[in-house]
Amino acid sequence: MTIRSETGTETGKVYLVGAGPGAVDLLTLRAARLLEQADIVFHDALVSPEILALASKAVLMPVGKRCGKLSSSQQFINRQLLQAVRRHRTVVRLKGGDPMLFGRAQEEIDYLAGHGVAVEVVPGISAAFGASASIGRSLTRRGLSRNVVFATPATGQGQRSHGWARTVCSADTVVLYMASRQVDGVSEELVRAGVSATRPAVLIENATLPEERVWYTTVGQLPEAARNLGEGPALMLIGEVYETAASSCVPEPTNTVWRVA
Amino acid sequence: MTIRSETGTETGKVYLVGAGPGAVDLLTLRAARLLEQADIVFHDALVSPEILALASKAVLMPVGKRCGKLSSSQQFINRQLLQAVRRHRTVVRLKGGDPMLFGRAQEEIDYLAGHGVAVEVVPGISAAFGASASIGRSLTRRGLSRNVVFATPATGQGQRSHGWARTVCSADTVVLYMASRQVDGVSEELVRAGVSATRPAVLIENATLPEERVWYTTVGQLPEAARNLGEGPALMLIGEVYETAASSCVPEPTNTVWRVA
Repeated sequence: MTIRSETGTETGKVYLVGAGPGAVDLLTLRAARLLEQADIVFHDALVSPEILALASKAVLMPVGKRCGKLSSSQQFINRQLLQAVRRHRTVVRLKGGDPMLFGRAQEEIDYLAGHGVAVEVVPGISAAFGASASIGRSLTRRGLSRNVVFATPATGQGQRSHGWARTVCSADTVVLYMASRQVDGVSEELVRAGVSATRPAVLIENATLPEERVWYTTVGQLPEAARNLGEGPALMLIGEVYETAASSCVPEPTNTVWRVA
Repeated sequence: MTIRSETGTETGKVYLVGAGPGAVDLLTLRAARLLEQADIVFHDALVSPEILALASKAVLMPVGKRCGKLSSSQQFINRQLLQAVRRHRTVVRLKGGDPMLFGRAQEEIDYLAGHGVAVEVVPGISAAFGASASIGRSLTRRGLSRNVVFATPATGQGQRSHGWARTVCSADTVVLYMASRQVDGVSEELVRAGVSATRPAVLIENATLPEERVWYTTVGQLPEAARNLGEGPALMLIGEVYETAASSCVPEPTNTVWRVA
């Protein structure tokens, strides 16, 4: 669906496009086609050069927001998108994973729609699905996991932090995004909220990329496992479905698997 | 990553591929390439003819599991996959959405890996992300929703049913899969578990397809909204992020939006 204000006068359109988990061929066909057609692409820091190369005729504008690194403010990005669509026909805002999950897409959609700009969202494979495919472990399983929660932790914020940990406690499988820089707090708060320290956990860095690394561990041992993390995006998976690393599996050379327990 | 038993002797490989939410161009590039290469494709009932047409040289085997319709047992599917990979190089098991979310992928992975067969999972866009893109509403939003739970309801099962409703209660945004045939029970149990009857809800049928239909309603009014549902796959979205249908939006002709409240 195209979201367009009734007073819309712009001829261009802004596409909020999911870049997927990392590997270039995990883009959707629609996303790849839009990148090829794009006049200008505003992209996050985490989008790979291989993906950006698809936008062969576009001006590339890094507006990367990256934990602890230089980043553009949301308001600045909003204004840049508006200016761009007044000059270009096809404006792509490319976000890692899926735009509608932890992507602040709503702020861009509302701002642009409020200015009469046509906006279309193109979904992407979120990291949880890329990671699950990589490790061959389903997020749900008959008789073991009927639900999954996707959350970002808010550690060290007292009262406010209880919410995320409580939600996490009641779900069968848990995926934590943007948690790798606060692993000590996450592990502590989960245990305090009632999660067993021996509950199985998986830490994955650079899922779906050649440099992917996987650690099988437990909630209590997450901080120790996290000491091995590099600079790549990392995801935490928690739940009974990760209880045993399939012992029959021989990982490909590019998929490095450790056990920290 | 390829999951291969150390005793693997088969030359073929089974790909568990996500077919995405419906629209053919929401397949990943990897999924489209594998369908083109496939010798045989085992597919769910919900996968569209347009997607199956990509598998131009493959034998098509419907093994559709569909709520209340004729379906193949999981054991029968497992055995068929094993037989196929003994005869063919590229065997695709095509599942709606993403294989690792409510797809019973683990049973197929474990069975095949246990028989020495190489298995690779290719992620797909799950319905929640297709639907969110269609309605232009983010699953998470700063200050309003920090987490999302994906669940299937188990209504009318007494004690057992409490689990899903309690998990749903503590999450900011809720996506219910496979709930459209039990809407009365879902609405009732959510309210009994403490969800406000006035909490905003969205019902979407055939998300991302031309025949997509959307109803903006509330938890209490879900049964009334659901009376309009047809035979297509439907998804329920619940949470404060759905509070107001963006009044500035003019839906495309193919995107029919109702309000039931």
